[in-house]
Amino acid sequence: MKKFINSLDSLLDESLHGFAKAHAEIVRFNPQPPFLTRTLPTRKGKVAIISGGGAGHEPLHSGFVGVGMLDAACPGQIFTSPTPDQMLTAAQTVENGGGVLFIVKNYAGDVMSFEIATEMLNCATATVLVADDVSLPKNHSIGRRGVAGTLIVEKIVGAAAEQGMTLAECKALGDKVAACTASMGLALSSCTVPALGKPTFNLAADEIEMGVGIHGEQGRETIKLSTATDMITPLVAAILEDLQPKKNQPVLLHINGFGATPLLELYLVYDIAAQRLQQQGVSIVRSLVGNYTTSLDMAGCSVTVSLLDESLLALWDAPVHTANLRWGC
Amino acid sequence: MKKFINSLDSLLDESLHGFAKAHAEIVRFNPQPPFLTRTLPTRKGKVAIISGGGAGHEPLHSGFVGVGMLDAACPGQIFTSPTPDQMLTAAQTVENGGGVLFIVKNYAGDVMSFEIATEMLNCATATVLVADDVSLPKNHSIGRRGVAGTLIVEKIVGAAAEQGMTLAECKALGDKVAACTASMGLALSSCTVPALGKPTFNLAADEIEMGVGIHGEQGRETIKLSTATDMITPLVAAILEDLQPKKNQPVLLHINGFGATPLLELYLVYDIAAQRLQQQGVSIVRSLVGNYTTSLDMAGCSVTVSLLDESLLALWDAPVHTANLRWGC
Repeated sequence: MKKFINSLDSLLDESLHGFAKAHAEIVRFNPQPPFLTRTLPTRKGKVAIISGGGAGHEPLHSGFVGVGMLDAACPGQIFTSPTPDQMLTAAQTVENGGGVLFIVKNYAGDVMSFEIATEMLNCATATVLVADDVSLPKNHSIGRRGVAGTLIVEKIVGAAAEQGMTLAECKALGDKVAACTASMGLALSSCTVPALGKPTFNLAADEIEMGVGIHGEQGRETIKLSTATDMITPLVAAILEDLQPKKNQPVLLHINGFGATPLLELYLVYDIAAQRLQQQGVSIVRSLVGNYTTSLDMAGCSVTVSLLDESLLALWDAPVHTANLRWGC
Repeated sequence: MKKFINSLDSLLDESLHGFAKAHAEIVRFNPQPPFLTRTLPTRKGKVAIISGGGAGHEPLHSGFVGVGMLDAACPGQIFTSPTPDQMLTAAQTVENGGGVLFIVKNYAGDVMSFEIATEMLNCATATVLVADDVSLPKNHSIGRRGVAGTLIVEKIVGAAAEQGMTLAECKALGDKVAACTASMGLALSSCTVPALGKPTFNLAADEIEMGVGIHGEQGRETIKLSTATDMITPLVAAILEDLQPKKNQPVLLHINGFGATPLLELYLVYDIAAQRLQQQGVSIVRSLVGNYTTSLDMAGCSVTVSLLDESLLALWDAPVHTANLRWGC
């Protein structure tokens, strides 16, 4: 394993210190328990938006703390759920009279930790569960996983909270965005979790994993490596089958790299996915391409589509100032 | 080799089509000869800033075309210099009465192609050569390589041109920024050039390449893998030895990922580099961390330091609206 590490024990802490130092005008790091909050104070009565989850998916969620998006992010150890005291203390720190909305990716450990924190809090709370990975069936026993669509929920709900929506309105909006967002990914290679020191799973030199999860969870099937078009087309097809967009439906198309796939390839993937969507009469009105919900050093990518309407589009376009998503300010 | 490719011949063209489609409000793609220009027209008399070089380093340079930075970017094939007709046609397209400034990374092929284009052009031109890689001695026979510091030259000169500086002023400014910018990188692994189909160089499981170039060029030495602090400290030391900053010197610290190194690690690298600079009494006033000058899927990173003064700082902070660097608008 070749990584920039001093010790496994201090890896996350050192990285978060560096992150907060590099972006001191945007975020502050609370080391014990670990969470990140905004540097700038928020308006009294604003709903506090908090997310979190295992580290190793950066910039998700830490890179999205800031004006117009998250109020706090709670990173667990790599690919490990954060503990309830992180969300509890983060919520107590950023709650500002408007209540707290948790945005939670659908993993059993994350869900449980956020639930415990909710029970311990003495303020109004609500939770939006993100489960956008259509590689699993809708009726899967533990539900679908939350993956790259989480960023879209965080951006849109974050903008709504900034504009003064109430907790109930933010919760309803988050549920709406989560319901109209679908993702599917594929891995060309495994990632290597530092504590494990070797690849999480094995793929032969001519194999890829269709429908892989962002921690390297098994997907729909292991298939042979093929052309980019032949690999990406089934992802778009699965998403369209799930979302059933109407003719001329405006959408946001997000191509997400898992960490080790060059932008050169991600834009080629974008071109393929965009052509497939246009062939189905879908109208791509916004695009986001890059490494946003990563899996350490995994090679591969995911495709995410969100159905938009005028109000969602305005919220997506609203100013955002975070370390890794910034426009309009 | 596992990559998202349809065919080697069409890889770059498909990727650039996808890039221009994803960022249609910012860039336009001219396929033959290939170059990218801004979508929005520029002010009459503005100096046109053009860069270019082999593809495979994305987002450099295509991701930096837009308001406040480049007017055009000319991508060669992967790790291959662009041809003079690209710069010639791009310059003829974007020249707007203020002359053309070429920003060129110091590689023999790039330099020659830009020189030929310059000779063929019927307008005022100037060239800024970037040679920031301090892993090579100052008196190296073919000069030092241009690496991640190029982005900083492009940003600062781009802002100056936007604000109305003349060609001669932009040229002098670019030379100044290039002279006070130093970089050094290290590779944990090789990249794989698609046309080659296998890693460019070999490193044992416990070896790293100190001072590697952004195409996998041999560095100062191959050494044993060590702790992050032991690997990063010599990079900072080499940079400081070259720049000789005065006490309390304000600097920009840029940690650049080569493509396959997670942000989690890049921020840990930032933390180490920042501590080393602070121990030397240097004052870090701006920071940039991420994958900006990549080497396809190489694992590793580089450290870049630019000495700043008030005017350079103001130009760095000036609004920029490109696909991969954006603030203030």
